Amino acid sequence: MPITLYDLAGADPDLRFSPYCWRTRFALAHKGLAVEAVPWRFTEKDKIASSGQGRVPVIVDGGSTVADSWAIAEYLERTYPDRPSLFGGDAGRAHARFINAWADTILLPGIARLIVRDIVEVLDPRDSEYFRRSREERFGMPLEQVVADRNERVEAWRATLSPLRTVLQHQPWLGGGAPDYADFIVLGTLQWPRCVSRFALLTPDDAIAAWLRRGLALFDGLGARAKTV
Amino acid sequence: MPITLYDLAGADPDLRFSPYCWRTRFALAHKGLAVEAVPWRFTEKDKIASSGQGRVPVIVDGGSTVADSWAIAEYLERTYPDRPSLFGGDAGRAHARFINAWADTILLPGIARLIVRDIVEVLDPRDSEYFRRSREERFGMPLEQVVADRNERVEAWRATLSPLRTVLQHQPWLGGGAPDYADFIVLGTLQWPRCVSRFALLTPDDAIAAWLRRGLALFDGLGARAKTV
Repeated sequence: MPITLYDLAGADPDLRFSPYCWRTRFALAHKGLAVEAVPWRFTEKDKIASSGQGRVPVIVDGGSTVADSWAIAEYLERTYPDRPSLFGGDAGRAHARFINAWADTILLPGIARLIVRDIVEVLDPRDSEYFRRSREERFGMPLEQVVADRNERVEAWRATLSPLRTVLQHQPWLGGGAPDYADFIVLGTLQWPRCVSRFALLTPDDAIAAWLRRGLALFDGLGARAKTV
Repeated sequence: MPITLYDLAGADPDLRFSPYCWRTRFALAHKGLAVEAVPWRFTEKDKIASSGQGRVPVIVDGGSTVADSWAIAEYLERTYPDRPSLFGGDAGRAHARFINAWADTILLPGIARLIVRDIVEVLDPRDSEYFRRSREERFGMPLEQVVADRNERVEAWRATLSPLRTVLQHQPWLGGGAPDYADFIVLGTLQWPRCVSRFALLTPDDAIAAWLRRGLALFDGLGARAKTV
Protein backbone atom coordinates (compact mmCIF):
# COMPACT_ATOMS: atom_id res chain seq x y z
CA MET A 1 0.00 0.00 0.00
CA PRO A 2 1.51 3.36 -0.94
CA ILE A 3 2.26 5.92 1.74
CA THR A 4 -0.30 8.73 1.74
CA LEU A 5 1.16 12.23 1.70
CA TYR A 6 -1.09 15.20 2.35
CA ASP A 7 0.46 17.66 -0.06
CA LEU A 8 -0.30 21.38 -0.25
CA ALA A 9 -2.04 22.23 -3.54
CA GLY A 10 -3.20 25.36 -5.29
CA ALA A 11 -6.58 26.05 -6.87
CA ASP A 12 -5.21 23.75 -9.56
CA PRO A 13 -4.91 20.47 -7.63
CA ASP A 14 -1.85 19.55 -9.72
CA LEU A 15 0.08 22.60 -8.53
CA ARG A 16 2.09 21.34 -5.54
CA PHE A 17 4.42 23.91 -4.07
CA SER A 18 5.03 23.49 -0.34
CA PRO A 19 8.77 23.67 0.42
CA TYR A 20 8.26 21.21 3.27
CA CYS A 21 6.13 18.76 1.27
CA TRP A 22 8.78 18.78 -1.45
CA ARG A 23 11.42 17.75 1.09
CA THR A 24 9.22 14.77 1.91
CA ARG A 25 8.52 13.98 -1.76
CA PHE A 26 12.25 13.78 -2.47
CA ALA A 27 12.85 11.74 0.70
CA LEU A 28 10.17 9.21 -0.27
CA ALA A 29 11.61 8.95 -3.79
CA HIS A 30 15.13 8.48 -2.38
CA LYS A 31 13.83 5.61 -0.26
CA GLY A 32 12.07 4.19 -3.32
CA LEU A 33 8.72 4.22 -1.53
CA ALA A 34 5.43 4.46 -3.41
CA VAL A 35 3.40 7.52 -2.51
CA GLU A 36 -0.10 8.78 -3.09
CA ALA A 37 0.20 12.55 -2.82
CA VAL A 38 -3.28 13.79 -1.92
CA PRO A 39 -3.97 17.48 -2.66
CA TRP A 40 -4.63 19.44 0.52
CA ARG A 41 -5.60 23.06 1.12
CA PHE A 42 -4.59 25.31 4.05
CA THR A 43 -8.19 25.45 5.21
CA GLU A 44 -8.68 21.66 5.29
CA LYS A 45 -7.40 21.27 8.83
CA ASP A 46 -9.97 18.54 9.51
CA LYS A 47 -8.43 16.21 6.93
CA ILE A 48 -5.18 15.99 8.90
CA ALA A 49 -6.67 16.26 12.38
CA SER A 50 -5.41 12.75 13.19
CA SER A 51 -1.87 14.13 13.08
CA GLY A 52 -2.66 16.31 16.08
CA GLN A 53 -1.72 19.54 14.31
CA GLY A 54 -2.74 21.59 11.29
CA ARG A 55 0.14 21.72 8.81
CA VAL A 56 1.51 19.58 6.01
CA PRO A 57 3.40 17.47 5.17
CA VAL A 58 1.59 14.68 6.97
CA ILE A 59 2.17 11.09 5.95
CA VAL A 60 0.08 8.05 6.75
CA ASP A 61 2.05 4.82 6.47
CA GLY A 62 -0.10 1.86 7.48
CA GLY A 63 -0.98 2.57 11.10
CA SER A 64 1.54 5.43 11.52
CA THR A 65 0.71 9.10 11.04
CA VAL A 66 3.67 11.48 11.08
CA ALA A 67 3.70 15.27 10.67
CA ASP A 68 6.61 17.68 10.04
CA SER A 69 9.14 17.17 7.25
CA TRP A 70 12.09 16.60 9.60
CA ALA A 71 10.16 14.10 11.76
CA ILE A 72 9.03 12.33 8.58
CA ALA A 73 12.64 12.04 7.35
CA GLU A 74 13.68 10.57 10.70
CA TYR A 75 10.68 8.22 10.63
CA LEU A 76 11.52 6.99 7.12
CA GLU A 77 15.19 6.47 8.03
CA ARG A 78 14.22 4.52 11.15
CA THR A 79 11.43 2.50 9.53
CA TYR A 80 13.20 1.68 6.25
CA PRO A 81 16.84 1.29 7.29
CA ASP A 82 17.66 -1.14 4.45
CA ARG A 83 16.75 1.37 1.75
CA PRO A 84 19.13 4.16 0.64
CA SER A 85 20.06 6.30 3.64
CA LEU A 86 18.77 9.85 3.95
CA PHE A 87 21.35 10.93 6.53
CA GLY A 88 24.33 8.56 6.29
CA GLY A 89 24.48 7.90 10.02
CA ASP A 90 24.09 9.76 13.29
CA ALA A 91 26.62 12.51 12.57
CA GLY A 92 25.17 12.96 9.09
CA ARG A 93 21.74 13.44 10.65
CA ALA A 94 23.03 15.77 13.37
CA HIS A 95 24.84 17.97 10.82
CA ALA A 96 21.86 17.92 8.45
CA ARG A 97 19.88 19.52 11.28
CA PHE A 98 21.96 22.62 10.77
CA ILE A 99 21.21 22.69 7.05
CA ASN A 100 17.52 22.21 7.87
CA ALA A 101 17.66 25.05 10.38
CA TRP A 102 19.45 27.27 7.87
CA ALA A 103 16.79 26.52 5.26
CA ASP A 104 13.98 27.26 7.72
CA THR A 105 15.34 30.41 9.33
CA ILE A 106 17.38 32.05 6.55
CA LEU A 107 16.65 30.61 3.10
CA LEU A 108 12.89 30.24 3.33
CA PRO A 109 12.09 33.60 4.98
CA GLY A 110 14.39 35.29 2.47
CA ILE A 111 12.51 33.73 -0.45
CA ALA A 112 9.16 34.58 1.14
CA ARG A 113 10.04 38.27 1.17
CA LEU A 114 10.56 38.06 -2.60
CA ILE A 115 7.65 35.91 -3.80
CA VAL A 116 4.96 35.75 -1.09
CA ARG A 117 2.61 37.97 -3.10
CA ASP A 118 2.72 35.52 -6.04
CA ILE A 119 1.38 32.69 -3.87
CA VAL A 120 -1.96 34.46 -3.40
CA GLU A 121 -2.59 34.08 -7.14
CA VAL A 122 -2.28 30.30 -7.21
CA LEU A 123 -4.45 29.44 -4.20
CA ASP A 124 -8.13 28.60 -4.30
CA PRO A 125 -10.31 31.45 -3.04
CA ARG A 126 -10.80 30.26 0.53
CA ASP A 127 -7.11 29.50 0.98
CA SER A 128 -6.17 32.76 -0.67
CA GLU A 129 -8.09 34.77 1.88
CA TYR A 130 -6.63 32.76 4.81
CA PHE A 131 -3.13 33.01 3.40
CA ARG A 132 -3.20 36.75 2.83
CA ARG A 133 -4.65 37.47 6.26
CA SER A 134 -2.22 35.23 8.18
CA ARG A 135 0.86 36.36 6.23
CA GLU A 136 0.01 40.05 6.35
CA GLU A 137 -0.33 39.66 10.11
CA ARG A 138 3.12 38.02 10.23
CA PHE A 139 4.81 40.65 8.05
CA GLY A 140 2.83 43.53 9.53
CA MET A 141 2.12 44.98 6.08
CA PRO A 142 0.25 44.25 2.83
CA LEU A 143 1.92 41.51 0.77
CA GLU A 144 2.26 43.96 -2.12
CA GLN A 145 4.47 46.08 0.12
CA VAL A 146 6.53 43.08 1.27
CA VAL A 147 7.66 42.34 -2.29
CA ALA A 148 7.60 45.90 -3.64
CA ASP A 149 11.35 46.40 -3.95
CA ARG A 150 12.27 42.82 -4.76
CA ASN A 151 14.27 43.71 -7.85
CA GLU A 152 16.55 45.77 -5.65
CA ARG A 153 16.74 43.17 -2.88
CA VAL A 154 17.31 39.97 -4.86
CA GLU A 155 21.07 40.56 -5.13
CA ALA A 156 21.38 40.71 -1.33
CA TRP A 157 19.29 37.54 -1.09
CA ARG A 158 21.63 35.77 -3.50
CA ALA A 159 24.53 36.68 -1.22
CA THR A 160 22.86 34.80 1.65
CA LEU A 161 23.31 31.60 -0.37
CA SER A 162 27.10 31.80 -0.11
CA PRO A 163 27.41 28.71 2.15
CA LEU A 164 25.68 26.57 -0.48
CA ARG A 165 27.70 28.11 -3.30
CA THR A 166 30.94 27.47 -1.40
CA VAL A 167 30.12 23.82 -0.73
CA LEU A 168 29.40 23.26 -4.42
CA GLN A 169 32.95 24.38 -5.24
CA HIS A 170 34.16 21.28 -3.38
CA GLN A 171 31.56 18.58 -3.94
CA PRO A 172 28.68 17.98 -6.39
CA TRP A 173 26.00 17.55 -3.71
CA LEU A 174 25.44 18.67 -0.13
CA GLY A 175 25.49 14.93 0.59
CA GLY A 176 28.99 14.68 -0.93
CA GLY A 177 29.41 12.45 -3.95
CA ALA A 178 25.68 11.70 -4.13
CA PRO A 179 22.52 13.52 -3.07
CA ASP A 180 20.92 12.86 0.31
CA TYR A 181 18.44 14.56 2.60
CA ALA A 182 20.68 17.61 2.98
CA ASP A 183 20.13 18.23 -0.73
CA PHE A 184 16.41 17.51 -0.52
CA ILE A 185 16.01 20.14 2.21
CA VAL A 186 17.37 22.87 -0.04
CA LEU A 187 15.97 21.51 -3.32
CA GLY A 188 12.52 21.35 -1.74
CA THR A 189 12.83 24.90 -0.48
CA LEU A 190 13.85 26.20 -3.92
CA GLN A 191 11.13 24.17 -5.64
CA TRP A 192 8.60 26.34 -3.81
CA PRO A 193 9.33 29.65 -5.62
CA ARG A 194 9.96 27.74 -8.84
CA CYS A 195 6.38 26.40 -8.76
CA VAL A 196 4.50 29.53 -7.70
CA SER A 197 6.42 32.45 -9.19
CA ARG A 198 8.11 33.57 -12.38
CA PHE A 199 10.44 35.89 -10.51
CA ALA A 200 14.07 35.02 -11.40
CA LEU A 201 15.77 34.19 -8.10
CA LEU A 202 19.01 32.72 -9.44
CA THR A 203 21.16 33.97 -12.29
CA PRO A 204 21.72 31.28 -14.95
CA ASP A 205 25.50 31.26 -14.37
CA ASP A 206 25.16 30.59 -10.64
CA ALA A 207 26.61 27.19 -9.59
CA ILE A 208 23.46 26.81 -7.50
CA ALA A 209 21.32 26.97 -10.64
CA ALA A 210 23.32 24.10 -12.14
CA TRP A 211 22.97 22.07 -8.94
CA LEU A 212 19.23 22.82 -8.89
CA ARG A 213 18.85 21.52 -12.43
CA ARG A 214 20.65 18.32 -11.50
CA GLY A 215 18.49 17.98 -8.41
CA LEU A 216 15.25 18.47 -10.31
CA ALA A 217 16.37 15.76 -12.76
CA LEU A 218 16.70 13.15 -9.98
CA PHE A 219 14.15 10.33 -9.75
CA ASP A 220 13.19 10.54 -13.42
CA GLY A 221 12.71 14.26 -13.22
CA LEU A 222 10.40 14.26 -10.21
CA GLY A 223 11.10 17.92 -9.50
CA ALA A 224 11.45 19.03 -13.12
CA ARG A 225 8.10 17.51 -14.10
CA ALA A 226 6.25 19.41 -11.38
CA LYS A 227 3.60 21.82 -12.56
CA THR A 228 4.61 25.47 -12.34
CA VAL A 229 2.79 28.73 -12.95
CA MET B 1 56.81 13.46 18.63
CA PRO B 2 54.07 16.07 18.99
CA ILE B 3 52.47 17.61 15.94
CA THR B 4 53.73 21.14 15.33
CA LEU B 5 51.00 23.74 14.79
CA TYR B 6 51.92 27.19 13.51
CA ASP B 7 49.47 29.24 15.50
CA LEU B 8 48.70 32.92 14.97
CA ALA B 9 49.86 34.95 18.00
CA GLY B 10 49.63 38.56 19.12
CA ALA B 11 52.41 40.78 20.41
CA ASP B 12 51.96 38.66 23.52
CA PRO B 13 53.03 35.23 22.24
CA ASP B 14 50.50 33.58 24.55
CA LEU B 15 47.59 35.37 22.91
CA ARG B 16 46.34 32.90 20.28
CA PHE B 17 43.24 34.05 18.47
CA SER B 18 42.97 32.74 14.91
CA PRO B 19 39.49 31.31 14.26
CA TYR B 20 41.03 28.78 11.89
CA CYS B 21 43.87 27.77 14.21
CA TRP B 22 41.33 27.23 16.98
CA ARG B 23 39.38 24.82 14.79
CA THR B 24 42.61 22.85 14.44
CA ARG B 25 43.42 23.07 18.16
CA PHE B 26 40.05 21.55 19.03
CA ALA B 27 40.40 18.91 16.29
CA LEU B 28 43.82 17.85 17.61
CA ALA B 29 42.47 17.69 21.18
CA HIS B 30 39.47 15.63 20.02
CA LYS B 31 41.87 13.17 18.42
CA GLY B 32 43.95 13.12 21.60
CA LEU B 33 47.07 14.14 19.70
CA ALA B 34 49.93 15.98 21.39
CA VAL B 35 50.65 19.37 19.86
CA GLU B 36 53.35 21.98 20.07
CA ALA B 37 51.61 25.22 19.13
CA VAL B 38 54.36 27.54 17.90
CA PRO B 39 53.53 31.26 17.92
CA TRP B 40 53.47 32.71 14.42
CA ARG B 41 52.97 36.25 13.12
CA PHE B 42 51.27 37.37 9.88
CA THR B 43 54.59 38.69 8.58
CA GLU B 44 56.52 35.44 9.15
CA LYS B 45 55.61 33.94 5.79
CA ASP B 46 59.09 32.36 5.52
CA LYS B 47 58.46 30.12 8.55
CA ILE B 48 55.61 28.31 6.77
CA ALA B 49 57.02 28.50 3.25
CA SER B 50 57.27 24.69 3.14
CA SER B 51 53.46 24.57 3.14
CA GLY B 52 53.45 26.31 -0.25
CA GLN B 53 51.27 29.18 0.96
CA GLY B 54 51.26 31.97 3.51
CA ARG B 55 48.49 31.41 6.04
CA VAL B 56 47.97 29.45 9.23
CA PRO B 57 47.03 26.96 10.53
CA VAL B 58 49.85 24.83 9.20
CA ILE B 59 50.68 21.54 10.86
CA VAL B 60 53.83 19.47 10.55
CA ASP B 61 53.26 15.84 11.47
CA GLY B 62 56.43 13.83 10.94
CA GLY B 63 57.08 14.15 7.22
CA SER B 64 53.69 15.66 6.39
CA THR B 65 52.98 19.39 6.17
CA VAL B 66 49.33 20.38 5.81
CA ALA B 67 47.80 23.86 5.53
CA ASP B 68 44.16 25.01 5.80
CA SER B 69 41.94 24.07 8.74
CA TRP B 70 39.53 21.96 6.66
CA ALA B 71 42.35 20.09 4.92
CA ILE B 72 43.97 19.50 8.31
CA ALA B 73 40.73 18.06 9.72
CA GLU B 74 40.46 15.70 6.73
CA TYR B 75 44.14 14.78 7.11
CA LEU B 76 43.71 13.98 10.81
CA GLU B 77 40.58 11.91 10.16
CA ARG B 78 42.35 9.96 7.41
CA THR B 79 45.64 9.53 9.26
CA TYR B 80 44.21 8.70 12.69
CA PRO B 81 41.05 6.71 11.90
CA ASP B 82 41.15 4.74 15.15
CA ARG B 83 40.92 7.84 17.32
CA PRO B 84 37.59 9.62 17.98
CA SER B 85 36.02 10.63 14.70
CA LEU B 86 35.81 14.29 13.71
CA PHE B 87 33.12 13.79 11.07
CA GLY B 88 31.30 10.53 11.86
CA GLY B 89 31.56 9.18 8.32
CA ASP B 90 31.30 10.41 4.75
CA ALA B 91 27.88 12.05 5.06
CA GLY B 92 28.91 13.65 8.32
CA ARG B 93 31.93 15.14 6.58
CA ALA B 94 29.93 16.24 3.54
CA HIS B 95 27.31 17.97 5.70
CA ALA B 96 29.98 19.54 7.93
CA ARG B 97 31.30 21.23 4.78
CA PHE B 98 28.13 23.32 4.79
CA ILE B 99 28.67 24.35 8.41
CA ASN B 100 32.28 25.21 7.56
CA ALA B 101 31.14 27.27 4.57
CA TRP B 102 28.53 29.04 6.71
CA ALA B 103 31.17 29.86 9.31
CA ASP B 104 33.56 31.18 6.65
CA THR B 105 31.13 33.20 4.54
CA ILE B 106 28.52 34.39 7.06
CA LEU B 107 29.63 33.99 10.67
CA LEU B 108 33.24 35.11 10.38
CA PRO B 109 32.71 38.14 8.11
CA GLY B 110 29.85 39.21 10.37
CA ILE B 111 32.09 39.08 13.44
CA ALA B 112 34.89 40.87 11.59
CA ARG B 113 32.64 43.85 10.94
CA LEU B 114 32.10 44.14 14.69
CA ILE B 115 35.58 43.56 16.16
CA VAL B 116 38.22 43.98 13.42
CA ARG B 117 39.44 47.26 14.91
CA ASP B 118 40.19 45.54 18.23
CA ILE B 119 42.60 43.12 16.57
CA VAL B 120 45.01 45.93 15.66
CA GLU B 121 45.60 46.52 19.38
CA VAL B 122 46.80 43.01 20.15
CA LEU B 123 49.24 42.52 17.25
CA ASP B 124 52.93 43.22 17.36
CA PRO B 125 53.87 46.43 15.52
CA ARG B 126 54.92 44.89 12.20
CA ASP B 127 51.84 42.67 12.05
CA SER B 128 49.64 45.54 13.12
CA GLU B 129 50.72 47.65 10.16
CA TYR B 130 50.27 44.75 7.73
CA PHE B 131 46.90 43.85 9.20
CA ARG B 132 45.47 47.36 9.07
CA ARG B 133 46.66 47.96 5.51
CA SER B 134 45.36 44.63 4.13
CA ARG B 135 42.01 44.81 5.96
CA GLU B 136 41.35 48.46 5.14
CA GLU B 137 41.96 47.56 1.50
CA ARG B 138 39.45 44.70 1.81
CA PHE B 139 36.78 46.80 3.54
CA GLY B 140 37.51 49.92 1.50
CA MET B 141 37.48 52.13 4.60
CA PRO B 142 39.37 52.79 7.86
CA LEU B 143 38.83 50.04 10.44
CA GLU B 144 37.44 52.64 12.85
CA GLN B 145 34.68 53.28 10.34
CA VAL B 146 33.99 49.55 9.84
CA VAL B 147 33.11 49.10 13.50
CA ALA B 148 31.73 52.58 14.19
CA ASP B 149 28.07 51.61 14.54
CA ARG B 150 28.59 48.16 16.01
CA ASN B 151 26.29 48.74 18.95
CA GLU B 152 23.48 49.31 16.50
CA ARG B 153 24.41 46.39 14.27
CA VAL B 154 25.07 43.66 16.82
CA GLU B 155 21.38 42.77 17.10
CA ALA B 156 21.16 42.08 13.37
CA TRP B 157 24.33 39.99 13.63
CA ARG B 158 22.77 37.92 16.41
CA ALA B 159 19.84 37.18 14.11
CA THR B 160 22.21 35.62 11.58
CA LEU B 161 22.98 32.93 14.17
CA SER B 162 19.41 31.57 14.00
CA PRO B 163 20.43 28.26 12.37
CA LEU B 164 22.75 27.48 15.27
CA ARG B 165 20.18 28.59 17.83
CA THR B 166 17.53 26.41 16.21
CA VAL B 167 19.73 23.31 16.18
CA LEU B 168 20.48 23.75 19.88
CA GLN B 169 16.74 23.52 20.62
CA HIS B 170 16.91 19.92 19.41
CA GLN B 171 20.34 18.60 20.36
CA PRO B 172 23.13 19.64 22.76
CA TRP B 173 25.88 19.79 20.11
CA LEU B 174 26.08 20.38 16.37
CA GLY B 175 27.52 16.86 16.32
CA GLY B 176 24.34 15.55 18.00
CA GLY B 177 24.72 13.91 21.41
CA ALA B 178 28.44 14.71 21.58
CA PRO B 179 30.68 17.41 20.07
CA ASP B 180 32.52 16.82 16.82
CA TYR B 181 34.24 18.91 14.16
CA ALA B 182 30.99 20.72 13.32
CA ASP B 183 31.11 22.18 16.83
CA PHE B 184 34.83 22.94 16.60
CA ILE B 185 34.27 24.98 13.43
CA VAL B 186 31.87 27.31 15.20
CA LEU B 187 33.58 27.23 18.61
CA GLY B 188 36.87 28.14 16.95
CA THR B 189 35.24 31.00 15.09
CA LEU B 190 33.66 32.39 18.27
CA GLN B 191 36.90 31.94 20.23
CA TRP B 192 38.44 34.55 17.94
CA PRO B 193 36.41 37.59 19.13
CA ARG B 194 36.48 36.21 22.68
CA CYS B 195 40.30 36.38 22.70
CA VAL B 196 40.83 39.76 21.02
CA SER B 197 37.85 41.89 22.03
CA ARG B 198 35.75 42.82 25.03
CA PHE B 199 32.77 43.67 22.86
CA ALA B 200 29.76 41.62 24.02
CA LEU B 201 28.63 39.62 21.00
CA LEU B 202 26.17 37.27 22.70
CA THR B 203 23.60 38.07 25.35
CA PRO B 204 24.02 35.92 28.48
CA ASP B 205 20.60 34.32 28.07
CA ASP B 206 21.30 33.15 24.51
CA ALA B 207 21.33 29.34 24.15
CA ILE B 208 24.45 29.84 22.03
CA ALA B 209 26.24 31.40 25.01
CA ALA B 210 25.48 28.29 27.09
CA TRP B 211 26.71 26.00 24.29
CA LEU B 212 29.86 28.14 23.96
CA ARG B 213 30.58 27.78 27.68
CA ARG B 214 30.22 24.01 27.41
CA GLY B 215 32.45 23.98 24.35
CA LEU B 216 35.16 26.03 26.01
CA ALA B 217 35.11 23.60 28.94
CA LEU B 218 35.92 20.62 26.70
CA PHE B 219 39.38 19.01 26.88
CA ASP B 220 40.04 20.24 30.43
CA GLY B 221 39.03 23.76 29.52
CA LEU B 222 41.28 24.12 26.48
CA GLY B 223 39.22 27.01 25.14
CA ALA B 224 38.33 28.54 28.51
CA ARG B 225 41.97 28.65 29.61
CA ALA B 226 43.04 30.60 26.53
CA LYS B 227 44.51 34.03 27.14
CA THR B 228 42.13 36.88 26.31
CA VAL B 229 42.53 40.65 26.25
